[in-house]
Amino acid sequence: MISPKFREMLKGESVIRKMSGKGNVLAEKIGRENVFDYSIGNPSVPAPENLNDIFKELLDTKDPLTLHGYSESHGILEVRKQIADSLKRRFRLPYTYEDIFMTSGAAGAMAHALRAVVCPGEEVITFAPYFPEYVPYTEGAGAVLKVIPPDIPAFQINFDMLEKEINEKTAAVLINTPNNPSGVVYSTDTIIRLSELLRAKSKEFGHTIYLLSDEPYREIVFEGVDAPFVSSFYENTIICYSFSKSLSLPGERIGYVAVNPACEDAAMIVDMCAQISRFTGHNCPSSIIQYVAGEMIDETSDLSVYEKNSKILYEELTKLGFSCQEPGGTFYMFPKAPIEDAIAFCEEALKYHLVLVPGDSFGCPGYFRISYCVQTEKLMRSLPQFAKLAKAYGLS
Amino acid sequence: MISPKFREMLKGESVIRKMSGKGNVLAEKIGRENVFDYSIGNPSVPAPENLNDIFKELLDTKDPLTLHGYSESHGILEVRKQIADSLKRRFRLPYTYEDIFMTSGAAGAMAHALRAVVCPGEEVITFAPYFPEYVPYTEGAGAVLKVIPPDIPAFQINFDMLEKEINEKTAAVLINTPNNPSGVVYSTDTIIRLSELLRAKSKEFGHTIYLLSDEPYREIVFEGVDAPFVSSFYENTIICYSFSKSLSLPGERIGYVAVNPACEDAAMIVDMCAQISRFTGHNCPSSIIQYVAGEMIDETSDLSVYEKNSKILYEELTKLGFSCQEPGGTFYMFPKAPIEDAIAFCEEALKYHLVLVPGDSFGCPGYFRISYCVQTEKLMRSLPQFAKLAKAYGLS
Repeated sequence: MISPKFREMLKGESVIRKMSGKGNVLAEKIGRENVFDYSIGNPSVPAPENLNDIFKELLDTKDPLTLHGYSESHGILEVRKQIADSLKRRFRLPYTYEDIFMTSGAAGAMAHALRAVVCPGEEVITFAPYFPEYVPYTEGAGAVLKVIPPDIPAFQINFDMLEKEINEKTAAVLINTPNNPSGVVYSTDTIIRLSELLRAKSKEFGHTIYLLSDEPYREIVFEGVDAPFVSSFYENTIICYSFSKSLSLPGERIGYVAVNPACEDAAMIVDMCAQISRFTGHNCPSSIIQYVAGEMIDETSDLSVYEKNSKILYEELTKLGFSCQEPGGTFYMFPKAPIEDAIAFCEEALKYHLVLVPGDSFGCPGYFRISYCVQTEKLMRSLPQFAKLAKAYGLS
Repeated sequence: MISPKFREMLKGESVIRKMSGKGNVLAEKIGRENVFDYSIGNPSVPAPENLNDIFKELLDTKDPLTLHGYSESHGILEVRKQIADSLKRRFRLPYTYEDIFMTSGAAGAMAHALRAVVCPGEEVITFAPYFPEYVPYTEGAGAVLKVIPPDIPAFQINFDMLEKEINEKTAAVLINTPNNPSGVVYSTDTIIRLSELLRAKSKEFGHTIYLLSDEPYREIVFEGVDAPFVSSFYENTIICYSFSKSLSLPGERIGYVAVNPACEDAAMIVDMCAQISRFTGHNCPSSIIQYVAGEMIDETSDLSVYEKNSKILYEELTKLGFSCQEPGGTFYMFPKAPIEDAIAFCEEALKYHLVLVPGDSFGCPGYFRISYCVQTEKLMRSLPQFAKLAKAYGLS
């Protein structure tokens, strides 16, 4: 029988896609160059220049039966070693290939990690504002996502609410730092306090509470920002990583699960991921893309434009009277809307050719997201529009 | 909590991998060249020669932000069109891009198709001998796989048993033709009879019974063999396709779901697949691999070696006294073991340096699988070993 669940979902529409759609309609009317589309979090800088050379060298030198052949169910051993070595070198934790499982981006990593350490009926806790896809990821594992209200205005963690909500059914806590949509990076103090709480609660409840750390923006941290490596602070951390943003390869679907080597049963969790793949129909990311990622393990695209855009936009918006926490990384900013209804505000912004996304679907009504992964030239041209919008709301 | 289900699975081991492992141990003792490893179904011919040129042209000419960018959630529109056009041209059914959903190989296709048309608690019927991964694929969708005993010796469909087992809970029937492990292709008569039965039973039970057609071996059919295009015979057919075998790209994880345009709600099923991805953490195959597959849509590797190997091996084995249905395609053969216990027989075969897989895990005890995707020269060298093995069992 046609699944009623998935059929029903067709009626729902992602708010991000809805706003992006409205931007496209506008672009047809007034021209793409006149629409300031801040709706989608798609990298705006190309992949590193040597990417093509690496692809071509692999094609020219590797036996095609190996290059395009089945990788073992955990991912290509050589690539898992390259990733473990890099993590070990950069963050001084003793990762080995046994702690690494190759996945189709961070989404695939979350699908595996959640099924490995969360059982049907258990709970996963995350913090608003949060990436809305965490809901299906968690439900896909048969579990329930509980959202802790935002810590306003800093967008760190609301520990009072966390202490109230964490309970015996809590199997994992899911964080995303640097954060989509706030752009905020959790401080060392935040991570220490979270780690201490999770350790105490694990003891109290008599079972490990895992910390799932969704880190696609790990490499996009701005100068001088305190950006702790989460796994260094909590032994039962599982990283869900993606090369989408760091190498500007979102369509190539490449990432990994990295279980903290200090985690109980790290290698077993990785082995379990290979079993989980059999149920989700995953069976490893593309083999050539795995090799490419391994070869480019410590490289990134030129990510400097994101910091540049962030500084310009933050300065301008605060000058205009918007209230906003300054981003520490990513390519997102999450200001407060000047009226309570951010959905109405974003509708109004369209009149100024600004495509913004209301914070409601991130669990944070009254705020809006700006994805400033755009050309700086275009960002500059949008500033007068923000000024008009601010004026319309009596901000400046 | 660590999932007891997936932890428990670590104790089980695939029989195919177990035999392959024994082959590797043997290879370390007597040298790889002296071991005749027929355990794994891995293409032995390289990808087509122009593959590298196509890769390089894409890298040189396409904007990297497009080439490596997010594809829309159904897959890249242009590639979906190329696939639909090819199916339309080759099989004269009016496919459009709306009937196509891009997946990570046939495994990904099955994961999506099963979740779309089978609800938790419902049943999926398949026919022995069958690919053992059908069990987790089906269980992943919350359903139960029911296996119809083999139709011996022809390995077509045991219709008497099917009629007994099909019932109100049957949501889908899953076939694989050309078949792994038997190598047999279902005849036009078989497909017509199956279609008629499914139509009658759909009517009787008041709901559509979908036919899931797993077709990774569609392009590997030997000369003169009757190989009907399943979708032409039954309107509610969903193809699960992979380019793994046709283009020798198993590690690149590229395939598709193609819903028969005559199927009720074809476009809706494809739309639902895009929702299902959100729960399995799938989010499309690699973008560059999608473009490559689109460009090579009607090409294949040089697949002639499989037919050549099949003829040589079939002739020799039957001459030696083995009983075997002649393969019509694939690179598998599934002879009867000369003793009841095929596991013991395959253990014994190792003494003759032959790595074979017992049929038990394919739901067909007493038979064994030979994956003859090997160099013909090596296959020739293995024939005297088969002769000795036959003699040991008094066959010749």
